[in-house]
Amino acid sequence: MVETGAPAAKRGRRTDGGQAKEAIEQAARRLFADHGFDRTSVRQVALAAGVDPMLVTHYFKTKAGLFAAVVQPPVDPALAITFVLEEGPDHAGERLAHFVLRTLEDPDSQKWIVAMVRAATAEPEVAAVVRERMVVPMLIPLAEAVGASDPEYRATLVMTQLIGLAVGRYVLQVEPLASRPAQEVAADLAGTFQRYLTGSLSGSEVGES
Amino acid sequence: MVETGAPAAKRGRRTDGGQAKEAIEQAARRLFADHGFDRTSVRQVALAAGVDPMLVTHYFKTKAGLFAAVVQPPVDPALAITFVLEEGPDHAGERLAHFVLRTLEDPDSQKWIVAMVRAATAEPEVAAVVRERMVVPMLIPLAEAVGASDPEYRATLVMTQLIGLAVGRYVLQVEPLASRPAQEVAADLAGTFQRYLTGSLSGSEVGES
Repeated sequence: MVETGAPAAKRGRRTDGGQAKEAIEQAARRLFADHGFDRTSVRQVALAAGVDPMLVTHYFKTKAGLFAAVVQPPVDPALAITFVLEEGPDHAGERLAHFVLRTLEDPDSQKWIVAMVRAATAEPEVAAVVRERMVVPMLIPLAEAVGASDPEYRATLVMTQLIGLAVGRYVLQVEPLASRPAQEVAADLAGTFQRYLTGSLSGSEVGES
Repeated sequence: MVETGAPAAKRGRRTDGGQAKEAIEQAARRLFADHGFDRTSVRQVALAAGVDPMLVTHYFKTKAGLFAAVVQPPVDPALAITFVLEEGPDHAGERLAHFVLRTLEDPDSQKWIVAMVRAATAEPEVAAVVRERMVVPMLIPLAEAVGASDPEYRATLVMTQLIGLAVGRYVLQVEPLASRPAQEVAADLAGTFQRYLTGSLSGSEVGES
């Protein structure tokens, strides 16, 4: 473990390679989660990590780069996909909905997803993080696994409902959505996820309604 | 029209009641739209309006209050509801989807919806604006008009898909969603809106799948 402010370390500057990088990442993870992307500065991260701000820039280029480096989906994509597909493609929507709600109801996971959505919404530079961390490793493979056409587009449709849920229920906390039991919300979103994953889409089958 | 910086006006301070308020609102509308909620300060609005910052606080209390006062849905709720219901409840989802896409594709409307979602996501104090400006005047009456149970909850489900679409396609601009023709996206969202408006929900009819 890195001991920030330990007397043995040279004050205000660390040059001990990997250890400094790790200290920066730990501090960033905590500050971004507690204060959000906007209200966390590179200077604050450096201070909390006990390093020179230049070192943060050296390792991560920008604040957005630092955010992208430390934000991690709170779930293992491979495990998520396995869970969602356990009862076959016909139940994927239902299982995905329950998986999403269970994940979002967990305070730690929720904190991270909310932080990611907030940061991406505020900062176009961070937007790519959503695609890299959520769409590419989890939603596209899931859409591919159910065997439907146009998996990349289906994955982004699923993403819209997922983000909308996170924003509406956990960020804006709009009622009555915010206090509705998670199981009920999951059941009501299941059909949407199922249709986006396996239903017929307008573009792929022209003329179909 | 208020002429900001007109030589006749006393520099740096306006005490001419309604006119100053209007100047503040005009400046706020422009600055919020151009720079977003986070990057616009009360001081900047006051400067652009040619008034003392204290006057902004006097009229609108906080920056969030000012934002709530000037942000207006780019559509008339009554007209929107009439349009969506023109072909009856069975086509409400389809018509709502096309209405939403058409509105979001319009650059001015898009600017405002994106600004509203961004501000609400960044600032919990602004979150109520989404409910007051979008859910209460438009989505709840729409859900009530189609005659389904639990209209307030249905309205918030519709809201989640609407916000998710706005964030995914216009803020994050995730591909391939961002460049998919609006007509196709509308067709693919239609079923979701229809189900949220008129489909059976888990909570209202217990035991139903």
